[in-house]
Amino acid sequence: MEDEDSLNAHGRLIERTFPELKVESRCIEDQPFGIYDKESEEKAKPKVIRLAKAFEKDGKDAVIISCAADPAVKELRKVLKIPVIGAGSSAALLALEVGDSVGVINLTEETPKAISEILGNHLVVEAKPKRVKNTLDLLKEESKEEIIKLAKEMEKDVDVIILGCTGMSTIGVAGLLSKRVNVPIVDPVVASGAMTLAILKNIDAWR
Amino acid sequence: MEDEDSLNAHGRLIERTFPELKVESRCIEDQPFGIYDKESEEKAKPKVIRLAKAFEKDGKDAVIISCAADPAVKELRKVLKIPVIGAGSSAALLALEVGDSVGVINLTEETPKAISEILGNHLVVEAKPKRVKNTLDLLKEESKEEIIKLAKEMEKDVDVIILGCTGMSTIGVAGLLSKRVNVPIVDPVVASGAMTLAILKNIDAWR
Repeated sequence: MEDEDSLNAHGRLIERTFPELKVESRCIEDQPFGIYDKESEEKAKPKVIRLAKAFEKDGKDAVIISCAADPAVKELRKVLKIPVIGAGSSAALLALEVGDSVGVINLTEETPKAISEILGNHLVVEAKPKRVKNTLDLLKEESKEEIIKLAKEMEKDVDVIILGCTGMSTIGVAGLLSKRVNVPIVDPVVASGAMTLAILKNIDAWR
Repeated sequence: MEDEDSLNAHGRLIERTFPELKVESRCIEDQPFGIYDKESEEKAKPKVIRLAKAFEKDGKDAVIISCAADPAVKELRKVLKIPVIGAGSSAALLALEVGDSVGVINLTEETPKAISEILGNHLVVEAKPKRVKNTLDLLKEESKEEIIKLAKEMEKDVDVIILGCTGMSTIGVAGLLSKRVNVPIVDPVVASGAMTLAILKNIDAWR
């Protein structure tokens, strides 16, 4: 990302929702279109690991990987001492505390494995906007309209809907949807903040 | 429970950890030994449903069922409009955001289904103190010592340990363990507070 404002969008959303958390953001270098398929995910992993290690060295209490594919999250948990929270797994876990039948609205391709592995049989519908190819396409007005349509079709079959891409958090899709559909919407960035607070508080509660 | 102080123990722990949450507690009637097997769980369910419905009617934002067996949680989610959070499922979900290999220390019998169903293959060790038959036995000093011993045996095989009974929250077992073992301890009552805050905040973030 080129500008500070976009870079800090997820951090601002987390800080606004959980004032106890202070967030510092770093961007995966040289991937202006983000992570949108297996290849772009594999390319991102070593960069994510490098950035996360630097955060730990800098004394941070936890690292959030703010992408629903949870790139390098499992690898990082083996090498870092601080908690490593993935946006995808956080969203899936939070959804399972809301209901049994879960729908996922994806960016492209299929539901990220970080989400589908946790949901298992609880994943009952998945959908993706036809005209979206990467996170930048989400900024178009027609993409938002398509996502709203998908959610309205989905709501009759599910207890809860997960947004399967943190790019949807950047543009506030959960805000659009929560006014238009009758099931709870799980925003992956908010979910990652919630799980971070949960893990840090769970550790602290008894220290 | 006969005295207000014991009745409010879980609520106080949640309020202390998450000051944004205010908790009002009710007790399952006529079950002084709590829920400790299938029969006592079935007996409790209609009483739990009655109490939870009264909370919703009274305008509460969410209901926490503070027992690791999650009695009546799935049934309640079908009938209540407000979120219904179970201590067992919350602990299991939170543990999965911490690591892959999970151990559970139980009160009696086996790991509650509310926990084992979520963990699946991630449940790698379960143990229970030999001389404990119900939640009241947890108050004995020898029970605490046995639980510490179980956790120390377990820690080499797991990334995280769940306390599989909220009676262990009442007596502060997580506090004893977190000073003595090197893996995070998930307290089911703290976990239920964390998931409640997460769900309410996730809904509110975009309203």
